[in-house]
Amino acid sequence: MSGKVKVAVLGATGMIGQRFVQMLEGHPYFEIEGLYASERSEGKRFGDTLKVRDHEYSQETLDMKISKMDIRHIADSCRIAFSGIPSELAGETETQLAQNGVAVYTNAGAHRMDEHVPIIVPEVNTDQFAAVKDQPTYKDGGYIVTNANCSSTGIVVPLKALRDAFGLEQVFVSTYQAISGAGYPGVPSLDIVGNVIPFINHEEEKMESELGKMLGTYGDGKFRYADFDVIANCARVPVVDGHTESLSLKLRDEPSLEEVASALSGFRGEPQKLELPSAPVQPVIVRTEENRPQPIYDVFAGSPERARGMASTVGRIRKSNGYYKLWVVSHNTLRGGAGGSILNAEYAYKKNLL
Amino acid sequence: MSGKVKVAVLGATGMIGQRFVQMLEGHPYFEIEGLYASERSEGKRFGDTLKVRDHEYSQETLDMKISKMDIRHIADSCRIAFSGIPSELAGETETQLAQNGVAVYTNAGAHRMDEHVPIIVPEVNTDQFAAVKDQPTYKDGGYIVTNANCSSTGIVVPLKALRDAFGLEQVFVSTYQAISGAGYPGVPSLDIVGNVIPFINHEEEKMESELGKMLGTYGDGKFRYADFDVIANCARVPVVDGHTESLSLKLRDEPSLEEVASALSGFRGEPQKLELPSAPVQPVIVRTEENRPQPIYDVFAGSPERARGMASTVGRIRKSNGYYKLWVVSHNTLRGGAGGSILNAEYAYKKNLL
Amino acid sequence: MSGKVKVAVLGATGMIGQRFVQMLEGHPYFEIEGLYASERSEGKRFGDTLKVRDHEYSQETLDMKISKMDIRHIADSCRIAFSGIPSELAGETETQLAQNGVAVYTNAGAHRMDEHVPIIVPEVNTDQFAAVKDQPTYKDGGYIVTNANCSSTGIVVPLKALRDAFGLEQVFVSTYQAISGAGYPGVPSLDIVGNVIPFINHEEEKMESELGKMLGTYGDGKFRYADFDVIANCARVPVVDGHTESLSLKLRDEPSLEEVASALSGFRGEPQKLELPSAPVQPVIVRTEENRPQPIYDVFAGSPERARGMASTVGRIRKSNGYYKLWVVSHNTLRGGAGGSILNAEYAYKKNLL
Amino acid sequence: MSGKVKVAVLGATGMIGQRFVQMLEGHPYFEIEGLYASERSEGKRFGDTLKVRDHEYSQETLDMKISKMDIRHIADSCRIAFSGIPSELAGETETQLAQNGVAVYTNAGAHRMDEHVPIIVPEVNTDQFAAVKDQPTYKDGGYIVTNANCSSTGIVVPLKALRDAFGLEQVFVSTYQAISGAGYPGVPSLDIVGNVIPFINHEEEKMESELGKMLGTYGDGKFRYADFDVIANCARVPVVDGHTESLSLKLRDEPSLEEVASALSGFRGEPQKLELPSAPVQPVIVRTEENRPQPIYDVFAGSPERARGMASTVGRIRKSNGYYKLWVVSHNTLRGGAGGSILNAEYAYKKNLL
Repeated sequence: MSGKVKVAVLGATGMIGQRFVQMLEGHPYFEIEGLYASERSEGKRFGDTLKVRDHEYSQETLDMKISKMDIRHIADSCRIAFSGIPSELAGETETQLAQNGVAVYTNAGAHRMDEHVPIIVPEVNTDQFAAVKDQPTYKDGGYIVTNANCSSTGIVVPLKALRDAFGLEQVFVSTYQAISGAGYPGVPSLDIVGNVIPFINHEEEKMESELGKMLGTYGDGKFRYADFDVIANCARVPVVDGHTESLSLKLRDEPSLEEVASALSGFRGEPQKLELPSAPVQPVIVRTEENRPQPIYDVFAGSPERARGMASTVGRIRKSNGYYKLWVVSHNTLRGGAGGSILNAEYAYKKNLL
Repeated sequence: MSGKVKVAVLGATGMIGQRFVQMLEGHPYFEIEGLYASERSEGKRFGDTLKVRDHEYSQETLDMKISKMDIRHIADSCRIAFSGIPSELAGETETQLAQNGVAVYTNAGAHRMDEHVPIIVPEVNTDQFAAVKDQPTYKDGGYIVTNANCSSTGIVVPLKALRDAFGLEQVFVSTYQAISGAGYPGVPSLDIVGNVIPFINHEEEKMESELGKMLGTYGDGKFRYADFDVIANCARVPVVDGHTESLSLKLRDEPSLEEVASALSGFRGEPQKLELPSAPVQPVIVRTEENRPQPIYDVFAGSPERARGMASTVGRIRKSNGYYKLWVVSHNTLRGGAGGSILNAEYAYKKNLL
Repeated sequence: MSGKVKVAVLGATGMIGQRFVQMLEGHPYFEIEGLYASERSEGKRFGDTLKVRDHEYSQETLDMKISKMDIRHIADSCRIAFSGIPSELAGETETQLAQNGVAVYTNAGAHRMDEHVPIIVPEVNTDQFAAVKDQPTYKDGGYIVTNANCSSTGIVVPLKALRDAFGLEQVFVSTYQAISGAGYPGVPSLDIVGNVIPFINHEEEKMESELGKMLGTYGDGKFRYADFDVIANCARVPVVDGHTESLSLKLRDEPSLEEVASALSGFRGEPQKLELPSAPVQPVIVRTEENRPQPIYDVFAGSPERARGMASTVGRIRKSNGYYKLWVVSHNTLRGGAGGSILNAEYAYKKNLL
Repeated sequence: MSGKVKVAVLGATGMIGQRFVQMLEGHPYFEIEGLYASERSEGKRFGDTLKVRDHEYSQETLDMKISKMDIRHIADSCRIAFSGIPSELAGETETQLAQNGVAVYTNAGAHRMDEHVPIIVPEVNTDQFAAVKDQPTYKDGGYIVTNANCSSTGIVVPLKALRDAFGLEQVFVSTYQAISGAGYPGVPSLDIVGNVIPFINHEEEKMESELGKMLGTYGDGKFRYADFDVIANCARVPVVDGHTESLSLKLRDEPSLEEVASALSGFRGEPQKLELPSAPVQPVIVRTEENRPQPIYDVFAGSPERARGMASTVGRIRKSNGYYKLWVVSHNTLRGGAGGSILNAEYAYKKNLL
C-alpha cells in the first residue's frame, strides 16, 4: 500500500489532462486511481490518445485504460479530482463531484468567478484558500479550487513580486499564445500556419478580471480585488507550447532596472518555503541576453526535474516614457495548466487541507 | 519616348527592392532605368534573384540585368533613386546620390533622424515635404525623403485619424512582425519556426521616435514632435508577410466605439484627394468580424489593383479601463516598405516637386 | 438573361467548394444559381465562411446566402452540380442528383470506382466521357463525372506526356501534400506544425488505382487499366496550398533528359486545342533552376488568368540507376480539386455533352 | 585524474558541434578537453552560441570558452577530435590532424569517399574499421573515420537488417529532411516557412553512393560496394529536427509483412552486443499505429537515456506491386550526426583501437 492520496484525472485524453498524467507519474504525494474522459474515448488505451509531443510516458501509464466519467465511482475511490475538462463542459461535473465530497482541483474556467471559489497560484495567494471553507460542500470534504487561465498564470508571479516591492498601478499586456492552449483538435492548421489570430474567446476579459482577483484578498466571505488596471490584448501565434507576453507596467515607485531584476529573480513564495515537489526553486528567472526569453529555449524553465516548465522567464527589462517594459515566457499547459492545479494540491496536502 | 520619369531601384535583389520593382511595373509616372545591387549580384538576371512569393513579374522584368551601384551613372540617367538598401549600408550611398542631384526616396532608416530629412506618409504629413528645401543639396535637385519603418507606417494613418478626431495622449503598441521585414537571408529558420523572438534591433526606439516626428510639424528649419507618448514592444513571429499590431490608446475625448470606427473608415488624406496611382481609395479599412484583422486575409487590403497591400486594416475596436483597444494589420514590405516611398514620389510628381 | 448554364455549388463552405465559387466568378459558360452546404451553414453569408487565403471574392459573391441541400430544388433550377462535398458524405446525394437529371461534376471520391463513372482529366482521357452514356440515369440527362484525387491529378498530365512519348512501366511516387487537401477544419495544428504525417487515409490506394484507370481505356461497357505499376507513399507536410511530388519512373525507351523535358513542355491536350476558358496554355511547365519547383513559387502556375493554378510545374529532371527522376508541384484545390471538375464541365459544354 | 580519453570538439558553435558537446557531457569514456571553432567565435562562451532547442547543458559546459582551431595544440592535448566542421571546410583541417597523430571522428563529408577512409555505422560495418590501418598516418596514431550523411544513417540499419534476412535489390527513397540538417544560420526562414524545397546539394548523390559503400566490404586495400541500386529524391521540409524517409524496397525473397517487422525489431548489432554507452538497446523500433513514425513523437527514440535519439523508428510496413514500403524517422543531428561519430569512437575505445 502506497499511502499516497488517490486521485482521478478528468479529461485525460486532452492536452491538459495528459499534462496532469505526466506530472503525476511517480508523484510523492499522489497516485492516479483512474483516467476519465468523455464516452467517445471510453476503453481506449491512454497511449493511443497522446497529444503531448515532448514527454515520454512510462509503459504502465501508456497502457492505462480510459474510463467514462462516473461521479459516484470517482467519489468512492478518489480524494482529489484533477480536472482538465474543457471549460464549457466542466461546470456541472465539477459541482457534482464537490457535492459528493471530492476535492476538485481544476484548470477549467467554469467556476473561477464563483462566490467562494478561489483562483490560486500558491506563490501569490495561498491565503485565499480560506474561501474554500465557505463553500457549502466543504463540510463534507468537497470543494473546488481553480488555477488561473494560462495567460494570467504566466505573469501573476512576476506581477506579485513587483507589486510587493514597488506598487503596481497599470498593466498593459499583449499575448503571443501557443496553439496547445486551445486544446485538441483545437486550432485548425489552415487558420494558424503562417498567421496570427488576434482573438481568443473571453481571454482578455479573463486576464482583466482574474489578475485583480488573485492579487486581491478574501475576507468576510468576499473577494476584494486589487486596485490596479489591466488592459489586455490576446492573440494566437504558430507556437506549439509556451506563451510569450509583453508587459508595460506603471509602478508606484521608480526603481532602477537592476532593482526590478532583483525583485523578480529574488522572489520566493510559499511553495519555495515548503519545498513542494513541483515548485521551482526560483519561480521567476531573469535572462540578460538581448533577445530572450523565447519559447523554444525557455518554455521548460524550472528545476528540479519535477518543476520543469513551472518557472516564468523574464527578460528585456527596459523603461520608456514612464513605463517599465519586460517580456515573459511561461509554459501554458504545465505552469499555466496542469502544473498549477498540481501545485495547489501539493500545498493543500502539505497544509493538511485535504 | 515614354515621357515618364526615369528611376533607379537600389538594392534590387532584396525583399524591399523587389517590391519596388513590382510596384513600378507599368507605372503611369515612372519607368525603371536600372536595377542596382551590391557587386555580388552584378550581372545576374533579376528573375534569378527572386524572393517575393506572391507576385509574378513580367518576362521583360524577369530578364533585366542587375548592375552594380555607380553613383555617377545613376545621377546621369535617373531623376529618382528608390532605395531598398539595408539601413546600415544606405547612409553614404544615399548622401552621395543627393549630392549628385538625385531625388532619393528611401526605405532605409539611415537618414530618418537627419536634420532636414522628413519621414513622409502622405496621408499624414505632406506638409513636412517643406523640410526638403532646407537640405543643402536641394538647390541642385538632390534630396532625401524617407518612409517610416514598417511597424510605424502600419499604424500611423489610423493614429492620425484618431488624433485629428479625438486627441491622442498615449500609445501602447505590441508588434507581431513578419519575417520578410528582416530581409533576405534575414531570420534563420532555426530561430523562428515555432517560435517568437521578442527582440528586433532598434525597432522599439524607432517606433517611439518616428511616430512623434511624423505626427509633429516642421517650421523654422526644425521638426517639432507631437506630444503623445509611445510605449512599444516589438517581436518577430513566423508569418511571411504582414505585421499585426495591438494598440491600447489613451484618447483625449471619450468617443463611442462607433465614432472611433467612423473616424477610421471615413479618413481620407492627400493621396486620396489627388487620386495618386498607388493610393488606396480607403486607407483604413475597418473589419467587424470578431477575429479580424489577420495577416492571411488582410495583408493585401487596398484597391484599386495598384494599391493592393497599401491599406491598413483595423478590427476588434474595444474599450477597457479607459483605454481604446484595437488591432491593425498592414503589409510590411508594400505599405510599410517600397509602397511608402512610391507613394511619396507620386505625391512629389503630382505636386511638381521633382 | 445571361444564356449561361445554371450551376449549383455543393459543399460551398468548404475548401473545394470555395475554389469552385472562385473559378465560377464571371465564368463565360456557367452561372452560379445557388450555394449549398450542410444544415449547419444554412442561411449564412458566403463571406462569413471564408477559408481561402489567397483569393478575394466579389462583393456580390461575398453576400450570397448558403442554402441547405435540396435535391428537388437543385434539379429544378440547375443543369450542373459542382460537388465539393466530403467524399464520405457525397455518395448518396450525388446519386440522387443524377437520378433527378442533374449533371454532377464532382471532386468527391465516392463514385470514382463505379462501373460507368469516369475519372476525367481532359488533357488525358476525354475519350472516357463515353462511359457516361452507359450510366442508367443518362437517358434523363443525369450523370456523374469525377475528377481524380489531388495527388494523382498533379502528375497524370506529365505521366501522359511521357507515356505517349517513351512508354511507361513503373511509377514510384512520394507525396508532400498540403494541409488544404484535408479540408476545413481538417488537420489540427498540433498535429502538423513542425511535423510530417506519413499517412493520408486511402490516398496511396487511390493513387495506385486511379492513375491506371485514367491512362487506360473504356470500351464495351468496361474500363481497362493501363499496364504500368504505381508504388505510392503519401505524407502531409506543413504547406498551405500545393502538393509536391517526387517521381522515379521506369520508361520503356531511353530518352535523353532534353527529350524528356521537351515531351513535357511541348505537351498539349484537348483543353488546349479547344481553348477552354480554364485550360492553361501550357499544361506542364518545365523549370530549369536547380531548386524548383517549389510550392511557394509555382503553386499558381498557369495562364491565362482564368487558368491560374491549373498547370503542373516539373523540375530537376535527372536519371540514376535506370530511372528518370523529377519533381512536380501542382495546386491541390485548383487543378487538383475544383478546377479539375470545372475543366471537365467546360469540355462537356464545348462538346454539347450537357 | 579521470583516466578518460581527452577529446576536442571541432565546430563547437554549430548544430552538430553542440550535439557532440551534449552527448559528451558526463560520458564514461571521453572527456572534453577543448571546444574549437572558427576565429569569429574565439573567446565566446559556449552558452552564448546555443542553437540546440531541446537540450539543457550543465552550467560548467555553458561556461566553457571557444578556442580557435590550433592543430598543434589539439594534437598535443587530445587523442580524439570529434569534427562538426562544415564539409566544405573540413578536409584540410582533418587531414592535418590525422597527420599529427589525432584520431579524427568526423561528421563532415569531405573524406567519406577517400581511398582508405571508412564510413562506419557500427551496427552495420565495424569490419570496415580495417581500412583505417591502410591510412598512411595510422602508424603514428592518426586516422580518419567518418559517419554517413544524416539521410543515409537513418535508414542504413533497417536496410542492413532486411538485406541480411531477405536480400536487397532496389531502394527507392524520398526524404523529408529537417532544417537543422543544414546547420546554422542554414536555411533562411523566407525559403522554408510553408514550403518544400526539393533540392539539397549533393544529398542524392551521397545517398546513392554511401549506402552501397557501407553495406559493401573492405579487403585487399579496397572497398567493394554492395550490389543493390539506390534511387534517391531529397527535399527539405519545415521540421526542426528529425528526418522522415519513405522507402520502397525490392527484396530478393518474399517475406510476409510480419517477417519484415520481426527482422527489423529483432535486429541487434555490435554496439548492442558490446553495450556501448550511446547504443540504443533496440536500434530499430517498429511502430504499429497507422500514422507513425512522426518526427514530433519519434525523433528522440532510443534508450537508455544516453542513447536518446539514436534509434530509427519504422512504421507503416506495407507491400504493393512487388515492393515493400515503409517509413523511417531518425534524429538527423544525433543518430545522423554527432551520435554517429560518438558511437564509432565508443566502439574503437572498447576494441582498443584508440
